Amino acid sequence: MLFLVGLGLWDEKDISIKGYDIVLNADEVYIEFYTSKLLGTSLEKLKKFFKKDVKVLKREDLEERCYEIINKAKIKNIVVLTPGDPVIATTHLSLKLEAKKSGVDTKIIHSAGITNAIYSLTGLHVYKFGKSATISYPYKNIISRVPIETIKKNREINAHTILYLDLHPKPMTIKEGITLLEKVDDDNILENCYGVGIARAGSDKPVVKCDKIKKLKNYDFGPPLHCLVVLAPRLHFFEFEYLKTFASAPDELESFVD
Amino acid sequence: MLFLVGLGLWDEKDISIKGYDIVLNADEVYIEFYTSKLLGTSLEKLKKFFKKDVKVLKREDLEERCYEIINKAKIKNIVVLTPGDPVIATTHLSLKLEAKKSGVDTKIIHSAGITNAIYSLTGLHVYKFGKSATISYPYKNIISRVPIETIKKNREINAHTILYLDLHPKPMTIKEGITLLEKVDDDNILENCYGVGIARAGSDKPVVKCDKIKKLKNYDFGPPLHCLVVLAPRLHFFEFEYLKTFASAPDELESFVD
Repeated sequence: MLFLVGLGLWDEKDISIKGYDIVLNADEVYIEFYTSKLLGTSLEKLKKFFKKDVKVLKREDLEERCYEIINKAKIKNIVVLTPGDPVIATTHLSLKLEAKKSGVDTKIIHSAGITNAIYSLTGLHVYKFGKSATISYPYKNIISRVPIETIKKNREINAHTILYLDLHPKPMTIKEGITLLEKVDDDNILENCYGVGIARAGSDKPVVKCDKIKKLKNYDFGPPLHCLVVLAPRLHFFEFEYLKTFASAPDELESFVD
Repeated sequence: MLFLVGLGLWDEKDISIKGYDIVLNADEVYIEFYTSKLLGTSLEKLKKFFKKDVKVLKREDLEERCYEIINKAKIKNIVVLTPGDPVIATTHLSLKLEAKKSGVDTKIIHSAGITNAIYSLTGLHVYKFGKSATISYPYKNIISRVPIETIKKNREINAHTILYLDLHPKPMTIKEGITLLEKVDDDNILENCYGVGIARAGSDKPVVKCDKIKKLKNYDFGPPLHCLVVLAPRLHFFEFEYLKTFASAPDELESFVD
């Protein structure tokens, strides 16, 4: 059996009791830091916590060489630990699909993912989030237009946009993310946008700041992981009140309340 | 201090170790089944698991009478347990806001929510989900048009739609949900829609079935909780392959792959 076990958002204690029990009873335990990072702990702390060896898998072990793991799971209980919840990344779904084709069942043990934390840290209405996107580092000097187009279309339907930030080669900051967005913002839509920057969600001291996107670029969010929400043009009063209380939103934001 | 601790999706072992430790050290522990349900366990099992008394809060205890809980949290460590993740419901965010106004800090301990499970059970691309909606029971004989309008607008931008189902007075089934949608589907858009019905997400035996919406209405999903995803008009090949493998999608769905 192949178990994909979510580690949650911050440190070793964010795993569920169900997930913890599965790790204790597993024949072999692996971990991957490719699809996300767990910055409130370390590999050494995790080994100590589980009292087990935990081997690190690289991208290629999860993709091209996934059959090595799948073949082991035919005769043993194999756990792959993953920061956050093991569902957002296609890598995990693809592993589950390949395992099934080889006759190996996969069990996913969920945990909190970044999206949950974004909802509770921003107080924005879940129903008002439109499509999300990831701001990636330029590829062959080309900056993807997907994030800016997603913001544009979401704002047309009064929807908020979650922007995840690239992790490779190193976790992107909000400043870097906004700088990339600006470079493809031909219609200058960011000029009038407000956003919420979030750093270290899931930790005891997350930083959450709401302001004009252009101002967030120069706000000091501290170390990663970062992510960014671009607000819908109109807000519910509750959303404004929450952002003012928990994300130091500027008073002028109230003029966008319906 | 007020702690809102998520219980996750199914049974008592879905709580995180961090959440469990907080419950053990709390002065008083409450639970609410208003915003969601936890069908893989019972109040008695939870009390046994935590070796503590756990008192049930009703809607009015969380809303009109929330100050009773908040006042206790001024001098004690109070835990409010909640099925799923304590963020989607405005009830929780509102409690956090009222607590802050009274000078009481709230700490949210996340857990897996239904959205995470929907992503992993359907294999649909996270980036392709548009706005979500809840199908509510008719209020004064009026059926809300919000869900059908959400589906319509999402399909125009090739987005999937998550439809949560009302919990009160009793958890709505997929059959009931689709019947309500049909009654306000003036343009007959459901006729050509495919969907995925999901029952008992987070349990060991969830039922996941992809088919035409009209056919899902008569599919036997077994007991609640249920939820429903209406598919975007075009699918990625991976999405089709995953739905075929894990949700018995009909072969004809392949003709909607780009």
